[in-house]
Amino acid sequence: MGFSTFFVDKASRAFRRESFFPRLVLVLSAASSGGLVAYADSKQENAAEPPEKKKLVVLGTGWAGTSLLKNIDTSLYDVKVISPRNYFAFTPLLPSVTCGTVEARSIVEPIRKIVKRKTDPVKFLEAECFKIDSVGKKIHCRSDVGTSLNGTGEFEVDYDYLVIAVGATVNTFNTPGVAENCHFLKEIEDALRIRRSVIECFERASLPCLDEEEKRKHLHFVIVGGGPTGVEFAAELHDFVTEDIAELYPHLSELVSISVIQSAEHILTMFDKRITTFAEEKFLRDGIEVRTGYRVVKVSDKDVTMKGHSMDEVSVPYGMIVWSTGIASRPVIRDFMNEIGQGKRRVLETNEWLRVPQCDTVYSIGDCATISQRKIMEDLVEIFKMADKDNSGTLTLDEIQDVIEDIYVRYPQLELYMKSKHMIDIHDLIKDAKDDFELSIEDLKNALAEVDSQVKSLPATAQVAAQQGEYLAQCLNKMEECHEHPEGPLRITKSGRHFFRPFRYKHFGQFAPLGGEQAAAELPGDWVSFGHSTQWLWYSVYASKQVSWRTRYLVLSDWTRRFIFGRDSSGI
Amino acid sequence: MGFSTFFVDKASRAFRRESFFPRLVLVLSAASSGGLVAYADSKQENAAEPPEKKKLVVLGTGWAGTSLLKNIDTSLYDVKVISPRNYFAFTPLLPSVTCGTVEARSIVEPIRKIVKRKTDPVKFLEAECFKIDSVGKKIHCRSDVGTSLNGTGEFEVDYDYLVIAVGATVNTFNTPGVAENCHFLKEIEDALRIRRSVIECFERASLPCLDEEEKRKHLHFVIVGGGPTGVEFAAELHDFVTEDIAELYPHLSELVSISVIQSAEHILTMFDKRITTFAEEKFLRDGIEVRTGYRVVKVSDKDVTMKGHSMDEVSVPYGMIVWSTGIASRPVIRDFMNEIGQGKRRVLETNEWLRVPQCDTVYSIGDCATISQRKIMEDLVEIFKMADKDNSGTLTLDEIQDVIEDIYVRYPQLELYMKSKHMIDIHDLIKDAKDDFELSIEDLKNALAEVDSQVKSLPATAQVAAQQGEYLAQCLNKMEECHEHPEGPLRITKSGRHFFRPFRYKHFGQFAPLGGEQAAAELPGDWVSFGHSTQWLWYSVYASKQVSWRTRYLVLSDWTRRFIFGRDSSGI
Repeated sequence: MGFSTFFVDKASRAFRRESFFPRLVLVLSAASSGGLVAYADSKQENAAEPPEKKKLVVLGTGWAGTSLLKNIDTSLYDVKVISPRNYFAFTPLLPSVTCGTVEARSIVEPIRKIVKRKTDPVKFLEAECFKIDSVGKKIHCRSDVGTSLNGTGEFEVDYDYLVIAVGATVNTFNTPGVAENCHFLKEIEDALRIRRSVIECFERASLPCLDEEEKRKHLHFVIVGGGPTGVEFAAELHDFVTEDIAELYPHLSELVSISVIQSAEHILTMFDKRITTFAEEKFLRDGIEVRTGYRVVKVSDKDVTMKGHSMDEVSVPYGMIVWSTGIASRPVIRDFMNEIGQGKRRVLETNEWLRVPQCDTVYSIGDCATISQRKIMEDLVEIFKMADKDNSGTLTLDEIQDVIEDIYVRYPQLELYMKSKHMIDIHDLIKDAKDDFELSIEDLKNALAEVDSQVKSLPATAQVAAQQGEYLAQCLNKMEECHEHPEGPLRITKSGRHFFRPFRYKHFGQFAPLGGEQAAAELPGDWVSFGHSTQWLWYSVYASKQVSWRTRYLVLSDWTRRFIFGRDSSGI
Repeated sequence: MGFSTFFVDKASRAFRRESFFPRLVLVLSAASSGGLVAYADSKQENAAEPPEKKKLVVLGTGWAGTSLLKNIDTSLYDVKVISPRNYFAFTPLLPSVTCGTVEARSIVEPIRKIVKRKTDPVKFLEAECFKIDSVGKKIHCRSDVGTSLNGTGEFEVDYDYLVIAVGATVNTFNTPGVAENCHFLKEIEDALRIRRSVIECFERASLPCLDEEEKRKHLHFVIVGGGPTGVEFAAELHDFVTEDIAELYPHLSELVSISVIQSAEHILTMFDKRITTFAEEKFLRDGIEVRTGYRVVKVSDKDVTMKGHSMDEVSVPYGMIVWSTGIASRPVIRDFMNEIGQGKRRVLETNEWLRVPQCDTVYSIGDCATISQRKIMEDLVEIFKMADKDNSGTLTLDEIQDVIEDIYVRYPQLELYMKSKHMIDIHDLIKDAKDDFELSIEDLKNALAEVDSQVKSLPATAQVAAQQGEYLAQCLNKMEECHEHPEGPLRITKSGRHFFRPFRYKHFGQFAPLGGEQAAAELPGDWVSFGHSTQWLWYSVYASKQVSWRTRYLVLSDWTRRFIFGRDSSGI
């Protein structure tokens, strides 16, 4: 017996440390395209650190920060990560956590585990940055893990490069009562609180001495905001009620009502119209009320008050309310913006290389920043000057073609514009462009006049944040190389080239799970897909995108468990 | 696609509703002796309810209450369950939850699910009973699910029979600072809090600006109480540190220290001496400090102060402290005891049939009550009188043998006493008992003089509570039958027989997991077993004792997950 256990012990260690392990899990896990697998191969050598390593500080362990950490070369930088959460959370599955389809523990992975296999160690500090000092090149942090740390629990960290990836907070639009009475759905803790709260509503409605109207009140679930998160939560809740709650609280399931309040005329406005229609029709069939064109103006502890087009106020009693309308900048970012002269902006602005323009060494990625794309019309004169090599005052087709690739790279809106107008090349853009054609600055202005209308800010999604993190890590990794051999487009105002190509977002599509094992999806190439098959696609994409083999195994086993045993309704 | 999903949907429903389902899970689950399987076969007929059904109210959903619910015949009683928790928790695995070996969700099962297959529905109310009115035969309850219930959230419930199974609370022995600074380990929430707190200690110790001494302080884990829970938690924590934490916090694992403070001279005093020695030696090898003979007198937010035999006070700084010393009555039970005249007792007392002697229709089972076994010497005169059928003033052997079986049943201490003295039958007990022997009352007194020393109160364990719940349910089920045909022993003071045989506890042994895949166990028949094989026995017994197939599947998959991927250290 002792011997066999010894073997098992050894085997367990082997499993957890050696490369043998992924092979086993391949057997366990079906979907494994491994897009974001954490444990990339890496050498374990501990060479003597060269003294000139720059200090890179990363704030935040969300999609952007984690993606950067996974791609950064720690042999080049002395990396510190600072975040109030010591884990990465796979946020697209948060709505599934609210009703227990997936467990919270299954979608989180400790940051220390994610960076464990790096060439050189990454230092993690569980603390919150409350002040960024870009002049003194340091940040001020406060530990949130208890108060027994001597003194105030505050400390400073120096940096050479700072990456701000702290994400955003919930936008209440200063609506009275929202902060006090609404649930949000941004963090793991939010999802767990919602889960407990849903069960509490059913237990409360089961108590004696309540008439039917009061029961209905306790079982009215309100979701403010018809975006993907709100819609997915409504769908999850509906599934939970019909599939699980109905069996355990048989007298209550008919008293349940779910309402989605949306200020726009439709839900899921960021999706293709066909998806919006499909979702609205499905919700109608499911009995989920969609109140479009209503804006919530007040939330009390019992009622939510909203205004429709007629500007009459309507108050509706609720049992639980979830607020999922949009995001706002965190206080530390607002302070930083004020300090560097971006005080009037809504969101922290970076350039196309994700750098904060006012600071040489501060980058910002993910939901806490937005890229300000340079307009082509602003640079028209310089573009013309740069292209007009012979200073003739007009551009030949050859002169244009010499610089057009750089223009495409520097102003991606140009390509988008041409695509939207079904133009194939420069000949379509500049009408009558024959070989002997010469273009004046006015002609160029006319040709490009509407191009900048294609400049759109990127959505605040996990996909954008992850791509930004990866892009920035790659830039930082080849910093030295690119200073010597710049790979970016020609500079318009100065001579030479930009060091890097600017960040370019690739949209891989988007899902909207709608409950009842059905989903809608926008896929690359303007494809749209609905229904059960799309839900299975959703399962496989989300399984493959998990951050580690552990979370992949857990998410898959949660789905299996839900399929066999249903969701748990214990109030813990 | 639509068709296949339709099939899957159907199959899922089938899995979850039909008897087909246990067969599948048999394949998934290895250990399945099914000692406590929740879903017993039961008929689904809904016969018209006879109007005379008595109202049975059960307080509590722990081991005792749940075991009663599983065994009660709901066609005979109108059953209401009232508890502040809407689930049953498999508490022996709580120490495993503290470090993430098993997830909290895996060891809980909603009460509504457990009673779902009963012939007639059982009503569950999530509320806390705060007053028992045994004269008015009603209880006063307060809902703890939010305050939005109209009025105070208080209500009353009438009963014909009341079963009190509310368990106990932690005993702080009025030690100053315990309630404010110590963690307990009785509820699911406690275990989750401890888990977060352990991780917080490591994150706190990772912060900059701390010297080694301060780090050691934050990484000193103190357990007060050397009983099975405290010892198992210490072992779990040690495993967590050596197996998981050491990899993620490499510079900290050497600074960790774990101390068990025990007032007695040894830990695990309720176990066989060999187990105590084995545990102490294992802890010594593991570097877990065992401070025996120390009593904690004060706990501040940073230090724990204790007193040894020399009566000197020693103060030791700690990072986290868990208090696991013993249990005390809940306030509602104390009030009830004062009301019925048990105010001077430490614990609520029941008779051998688990009924509160002062109330005809109130029973109490589990940790909140203790059985007061009638002493044989108190009834000596009546026993003599009852046996002396011919009123001769002496007992013949025949007369004794006529009643001895009833005596054995009524006073189980007699059998224990004879066993302890290696006596086989009545001839060994009464020396010189020949056929013509006649026994005076004095002789009887001498023979039985030391018998009552064998009266011992039962330990506050899950095993006792579960057996009491089952016993009481069986008594309630055959109430009518036994009133007509009593099956208990002869009444000593009155004529006739007791309705039921008194409750008799069967000890099936006890485990003490000691970490490192080793456990100790006391098995029936004074067997003792240690080591790796015992840990495997522990795994199979605990898997088989799970309350439902769902929790069995989850616990097994948690163990597998821990074996492959280790424990998660995310601070959620």
